[in-house]
Amino acid sequence: MKPAQGKLGVLCVGMGAVTTTFIAGTLMYRKGLGLPGGAVTQMAKIRVGRGEKKQYKKIGDIVPLVSMDDMVFGGWDIFTDNAYESALNAGVLLAKDVDPVRDELKAIRPMAAAFDPKFVSRLHGEHIKQGTRLELVEQLREDIRRFKAENNCERVVVLWAASTEIYVPYFEPVHGTLAALEAAMAADDQEHVAPSMCYAYAAMAEDAPFVMGAPNTCIDIPAMWEMAEAKQLPIAGKDFKTGQTLMKTVLAPMLRTRCLGLAGWFSTNILGNRDGEVLDAPENFHTKEVSKLGVIDTILKADEQPELYGDIYHKVRINYYPPRGDAKEGWDNLDIYGWMGKDYGMQIKVDFLCRDSILAAPIVLDLVVCADLAHRAGLKGIQRWMSFFLKSPMHDFTQGEEPIHDLFQQYILFKNQIRLLGGYEADEELD
Amino acid sequence: MKPAQGKLGVLCVGMGAVTTTFIAGTLMYRKGLGLPGGAVTQMAKIRVGRGEKKQYKKIGDIVPLVSMDDMVFGGWDIFTDNAYESALNAGVLLAKDVDPVRDELKAIRPMAAAFDPKFVSRLHGEHIKQGTRLELVEQLREDIRRFKAENNCERVVVLWAASTEIYVPYFEPVHGTLAALEAAMAADDQEHVAPSMCYAYAAMAEDAPFVMGAPNTCIDIPAMWEMAEAKQLPIAGKDFKTGQTLMKTVLAPMLRTRCLGLAGWFSTNILGNRDGEVLDAPENFHTKEVSKLGVIDTILKADEQPELYGDIYHKVRINYYPPRGDAKEGWDNLDIYGWMGKDYGMQIKVDFLCRDSILAAPIVLDLVVCADLAHRAGLKGIQRWMSFFLKSPMHDFTQGEEPIHDLFQQYILFKNQIRLLGGYEADEELD
Amino acid sequence: MKPAQGKLGVLCVGMGAVTTTFIAGTLMYRKGLGLPGGAVTQMAKIRVGRGEKKQYKKIGDIVPLVSMDDMVFGGWDIFTDNAYESALNAGVLLAKDVDPVRDELKAIRPMAAAFDPKFVSRLHGEHIKQGTRLELVEQLREDIRRFKAENNCERVVVLWAASTEIYVPYFEPVHGTLAALEAAMAADDQEHVAPSMCYAYAAMAEDAPFVMGAPNTCIDIPAMWEMAEAKQLPIAGKDFKTGQTLMKTVLAPMLRTRCLGLAGWFSTNILGNRDGEVLDAPENFHTKEVSKLGVIDTILKADEQPELYGDIYHKVRINYYPPRGDAKEGWDNLDIYGWMGKDYGMQIKVDFLCRDSILAAPIVLDLVVCADLAHRAGLKGIQRWMSFFLKSPMHDFTQGEEPIHDLFQQYILFKNQIRLLGGYEADEELD
Amino acid sequence: MKPAQGKLGVLCVGMGAVTTTFIAGTLMYRKGLGLPGGAVTQMAKIRVGRGEKKQYKKIGDIVPLVSMDDMVFGGWDIFTDNAYESALNAGVLLAKDVDPVRDELKAIRPMAAAFDPKFVSRLHGEHIKQGTRLELVEQLREDIRRFKAENNCERVVVLWAASTEIYVPYFEPVHGTLAALEAAMAADDQEHVAPSMCYAYAAMAEDAPFVMGAPNTCIDIPAMWEMAEAKQLPIAGKDFKTGQTLMKTVLAPMLRTRCLGLAGWFSTNILGNRDGEVLDAPENFHTKEVSKLGVIDTILKADEQPELYGDIYHKVRINYYPPRGDAKEGWDNLDIYGWMGKDYGMQIKVDFLCRDSILAAPIVLDLVVCADLAHRAGLKGIQRWMSFFLKSPMHDFTQGEEPIHDLFQQYILFKNQIRLLGGYEADEELD
Repeated sequence: MKPAQGKLGVLCVGMGAVTTTFIAGTLMYRKGLGLPGGAVTQMAKIRVGRGEKKQYKKIGDIVPLVSMDDMVFGGWDIFTDNAYESALNAGVLLAKDVDPVRDELKAIRPMAAAFDPKFVSRLHGEHIKQGTRLELVEQLREDIRRFKAENNCERVVVLWAASTEIYVPYFEPVHGTLAALEAAMAADDQEHVAPSMCYAYAAMAEDAPFVMGAPNTCIDIPAMWEMAEAKQLPIAGKDFKTGQTLMKTVLAPMLRTRCLGLAGWFSTNILGNRDGEVLDAPENFHTKEVSKLGVIDTILKADEQPELYGDIYHKVRINYYPPRGDAKEGWDNLDIYGWMGKDYGMQIKVDFLCRDSILAAPIVLDLVVCADLAHRAGLKGIQRWMSFFLKSPMHDFTQGEEPIHDLFQQYILFKNQIRLLGGYEADEELD
Repeated sequence: MKPAQGKLGVLCVGMGAVTTTFIAGTLMYRKGLGLPGGAVTQMAKIRVGRGEKKQYKKIGDIVPLVSMDDMVFGGWDIFTDNAYESALNAGVLLAKDVDPVRDELKAIRPMAAAFDPKFVSRLHGEHIKQGTRLELVEQLREDIRRFKAENNCERVVVLWAASTEIYVPYFEPVHGTLAALEAAMAADDQEHVAPSMCYAYAAMAEDAPFVMGAPNTCIDIPAMWEMAEAKQLPIAGKDFKTGQTLMKTVLAPMLRTRCLGLAGWFSTNILGNRDGEVLDAPENFHTKEVSKLGVIDTILKADEQPELYGDIYHKVRINYYPPRGDAKEGWDNLDIYGWMGKDYGMQIKVDFLCRDSILAAPIVLDLVVCADLAHRAGLKGIQRWMSFFLKSPMHDFTQGEEPIHDLFQQYILFKNQIRLLGGYEADEELD
Repeated sequence: MKPAQGKLGVLCVGMGAVTTTFIAGTLMYRKGLGLPGGAVTQMAKIRVGRGEKKQYKKIGDIVPLVSMDDMVFGGWDIFTDNAYESALNAGVLLAKDVDPVRDELKAIRPMAAAFDPKFVSRLHGEHIKQGTRLELVEQLREDIRRFKAENNCERVVVLWAASTEIYVPYFEPVHGTLAALEAAMAADDQEHVAPSMCYAYAAMAEDAPFVMGAPNTCIDIPAMWEMAEAKQLPIAGKDFKTGQTLMKTVLAPMLRTRCLGLAGWFSTNILGNRDGEVLDAPENFHTKEVSKLGVIDTILKADEQPELYGDIYHKVRINYYPPRGDAKEGWDNLDIYGWMGKDYGMQIKVDFLCRDSILAAPIVLDLVVCADLAHRAGLKGIQRWMSFFLKSPMHDFTQGEEPIHDLFQQYILFKNQIRLLGGYEADEELD
Repeated sequence: MKPAQGKLGVLCVGMGAVTTTFIAGTLMYRKGLGLPGGAVTQMAKIRVGRGEKKQYKKIGDIVPLVSMDDMVFGGWDIFTDNAYESALNAGVLLAKDVDPVRDELKAIRPMAAAFDPKFVSRLHGEHIKQGTRLELVEQLREDIRRFKAENNCERVVVLWAASTEIYVPYFEPVHGTLAALEAAMAADDQEHVAPSMCYAYAAMAEDAPFVMGAPNTCIDIPAMWEMAEAKQLPIAGKDFKTGQTLMKTVLAPMLRTRCLGLAGWFSTNILGNRDGEVLDAPENFHTKEVSKLGVIDTILKADEQPELYGDIYHKVRINYYPPRGDAKEGWDNLDIYGWMGKDYGMQIKVDFLCRDSILAAPIVLDLVVCADLAHRAGLKGIQRWMSFFLKSPMHDFTQGEEPIHDLFQQYILFKNQIRLLGGYEADEELD
């Protein structure tokens, strides 16, 4: 494995609430002023060795991780606000947690975005690149090279923290091979080449791992897998697992473990940030819905326990609700049953008053750190062990692979990979 | 291991809502009319073997379990109602789920209870044995022998499903050795020998495993461990893990796994059955409180993650609320935090509208089945692998052992034991 | 006023859950077996007289009300099930509350419905009249005449308790005058003449008051008002005020009375009965949404208190959720503020676990009783005093009238009218 | 009526979160920087005149109210912190809402308190007067005179915004007449003369109206009424009606108005401020419990509607929960029923995430303004029309008077009094 030396460029697509909360928090931490709570790579200890040889170590003591001190931040956005202005607009952090790093934040100015309003309803920007799909790719590559050079970066990771795009079905021929995708870019096929694909392509072309934090299917296509393979690059996605789905992937395992039946699960969300506004449009929401709905079925297997999970009614709704700003609220209702069946139904209701960006920021950090680790370790293609951070984990569905959603099973995947890379046995079996 | 042949006598202390729901449900199942939902021994499949040899099997296909068809039911109560009358009073099951087994239930008449009102405030019964503590033991032993003979039982399991007794500290000298306990019984030491201890002693004296389903510290004492060792008997307890604590042992692992901090956890309960009435008395509640409060601390270790778990305010309240009857409601509020610390607090609220007896009945079944399995397998003393079903799992605190509360870690303990008994490798490591 | 003598025919459009719960409950009450809880005409006492002369009387002691013993039930439905079968399907009442009146219920067989699937998506029936709009009217009139004769009824009331139709804008010329509406019926104008209008027209043509219990705009049109005027008949509607809106019209007055500001109100509903299925279709839901959304604005007047109510975000969602059946759940979240403004926001969350038909049945009873009272008293046209029972009270918008939504103001309207009819002063002033 | 001219001294007992939020907000408002949301005297319009003559006017346009600009603030506390320091400790207001009035706040320094730790468990202060009860009274009188002189005040109002004292039964002979109370003070009867009584006595002795904002029974005794009568002074109390009880007095009227039955009402509260800490002690809580429990019974009269309200189980719990600070959360559960009785129960759950001081501050303002109005208008003794702001309104129980709890009935009392004082008819009848 290559060592974690030199600067790591962290380029974020979208410099809104999540990105600025992540950057400001990291900068504050460097000054000894912030807790990287929620960041597993920074705070967790995991077991290595078994029985007598059992030890609990911090992850950075098992494998070489990039230090939070060695990161350089940049990105793209459809608005020209610098990271300080954007953080103020986002209204997530208190003044006391932004002011000490004001100058660093002000220096982070977004590059013009590759953007196509047809792919994101209800969003209109002014800081936008012009050109065919291929020209956008070229401009993005140039952005990455320049950033790397100017900041003297050893390595770069590109991470999407921008809006949800409309649903792009990933079974079109144009997505099937790298050659086909490149041909579509050359032909400026605006219907099949989402702007997000331009970023992913440009990142990989410049030898940077790419991480998809929204539910966009951008790298969920064989063409991208082929490119990752060819370029020896790790890719990961999709959709940060933050509030309601995090909860879901913990409660569903509880039911399964205890053999409690599930009749229905209703999830509704209110949130008032830009993400909420975008998702209020049905065409954008569909992408999210697909990302969210799979969770329960893959944890509670109907075919194995038909009496318990054979007839589940699952519904997910997201509602734009401006009074809340970044403070999202998820309300879930589960109708469960057990002894003597459905006539003795019980209900679990979960009201999760969370903060979108506060939950997402440490996940951004973890994904960046892990993508860089994977890159240096020579791992390539889909990184399933990073599912732990993702709502709709990538998997090779062309091979019949199923995603792992159960949070604790995802954690096993994650720990096993860390153990392996650290020279230990990957000793936990996935169930 | 001895085979699971012949009749198993299931003797329950207390024939109220939980016991009759368990019995009626089991009898209905025998007639093909009921689902043993929530009963892990009957419904779960677990993995045995690793990698290529991985298989998923029902537990009964790995180890020989007593069949639900081979159980014979009996018990003690402070009221004379038979199991049918008691089930009607409890009001848990609908008529359609009791009528088909009415005759079997009517035939189950409780034996007179060993009872001391000093140990349970607010409860007054009429169907009660007279005598010194030693005489009570003798009468209970005689009950067990007679039941076994009359019902032609091969084996017997005794399980406590009665009320919570007042808190009995378990560090008194009288509880330290079997000889001391026997001396106390002989001396009719009513202060230190709880009625529940008479049951446990009588059960073991008659070669029956004993399971404590309430939070009573009855078998949480070295004297009982010594007896279990001497008689080669398994014992297990305490306090069925049903609603709120089940939830707690799932949500706390979620926080720990994701390195989310916890500032406070407030749990309140309303329930209207006899258990609620008893627990409304502060002296009884204290026993329950001790049982419930340990859960969080042992999952979220403050010393390992002081920034996240060093200052948790945990409070548990139980309220008698007659309008609900057996339908318990637990309301939990968690104050959590992560990125950038406590100034960015978030809240999780869980409202669990459950049914006390519907959740407890399958656990009674599982505990009976597992106790009998352990007995036939020659396991003796505290059965930690049965922690999975218990709110306050027994452990040898004189050796510094800590209880395992995390539901998924408990499940590992459970599965490993089943694997071992079935001749497979106990391949999951406890973290 | 005419006396309340002789039989009153109660003809319900739709014989589903609400109607059968209403009928079964009324029949049970006649047998001394049921409580008419929620029925204000049967249970409330109101004040008449002021100061020294103040008295509290039951409504039936102030004005002559039809007795529950004098009602004869009938109706129309798109299915042929009799009222007993329909009550069983609805699954609202326990067997013990239906069996004693089984024979009476079986004798109530629905007449074939006037139905047009274009007006109600997702519903398909088999017991349907054929014909042009005019022919449907004629058949319905014949039904009413026959029912009246066969049952020896002195008077008849017709009440709509069927599904929500798609939204019919009520500003079309065809709805403006009775002549225009009759011409449209004669021309079989299926686009503008909803089936519900055929019922309302037929009822009035046969001298029966008509009550609209769904949000359909059926009698919210000048043509119908003209007919009611001409025929000297009272009409009332629309949409039974049961769960979530009832709550809303109580909480909004609390805010206004205490000068607390409102930033947002989010309401979501899950329900699994036929009504839920119909409303899950966006085209049907729109009618309901219009009915539900007006409530807050008319109570909290933005122009009078712009600092408190000038910027309210109000959103209502209804979700079909089959696991619940008739047991509806409404979840509301209010974002409020007061001292020092919006930076010190507070939240009120209301979770209302209700039963659709149990809440609606007494309102059906009250509306029938009041409509008959109004009829005998010679009141004609829109009955604003019946707003108390309705989510979206009718009012003459062509005269700039505003609906009254505040529950307690509605109650004043109601009590004043009862007082007037009883010969007392209508002494409460509407604010 | 005397005009509202000159300065009004506002002397608060206790200068903690509520008092400083009230003062800071008022000062900010004077600078044009704050909204007096929740303050009815400042924001509401009420109707005067009936029918054609109906008008809606702001209260200050009907009767002469003291202007917020004419108030001078002072008070007593057991700590020496000035109002600025105390506001910072309270942590209720953001820096931006305190800084502009920092100097004014700093100038407000508390006078030493009359305090007796026997009356308030868990609270220990250092800024305390010494002396017998009589000497305390003399010192407090001297404080009031000095404050009045130094600040050139025309009038003074004294308001208790300090902790809940232990329950003092108000039927002791010593409380029965003014002479008896004065004798007890002279005899330094520390058991029967609560410190709060010293404040009330001193205020009235100095011709100042007294308002009790906690549930203390301090002025709920005939001795104090006699003094108020003799001195021609208004008194009002007790216990600010803010969160959970405000909600209760709105939901209970909803049930009664609609004839819905109530089986049980469970209320629990978590809060983390000083008030929460004090109320966590059972001896203090009892005073609050008495204050809170009466609410439902007086609104839902069991004797008038025994089938609906004859068997209500009402329970109130308050829990100290430090993670929340001043942000109180009340969770209520109502078990209701209607049509066909209790077998068809429904549940309403209300989760009120409020802010103690933000809700209380405008009530302090309203009570001060109204007490001063009453004083100038020559009203004396218990001011029932101020019940609108109070959880446990004072009333002359020796005459069999019952308190009015229904928020909307309280509002009628309030509006009628304003109308009367403004020369209009008090035209709303209380039901």
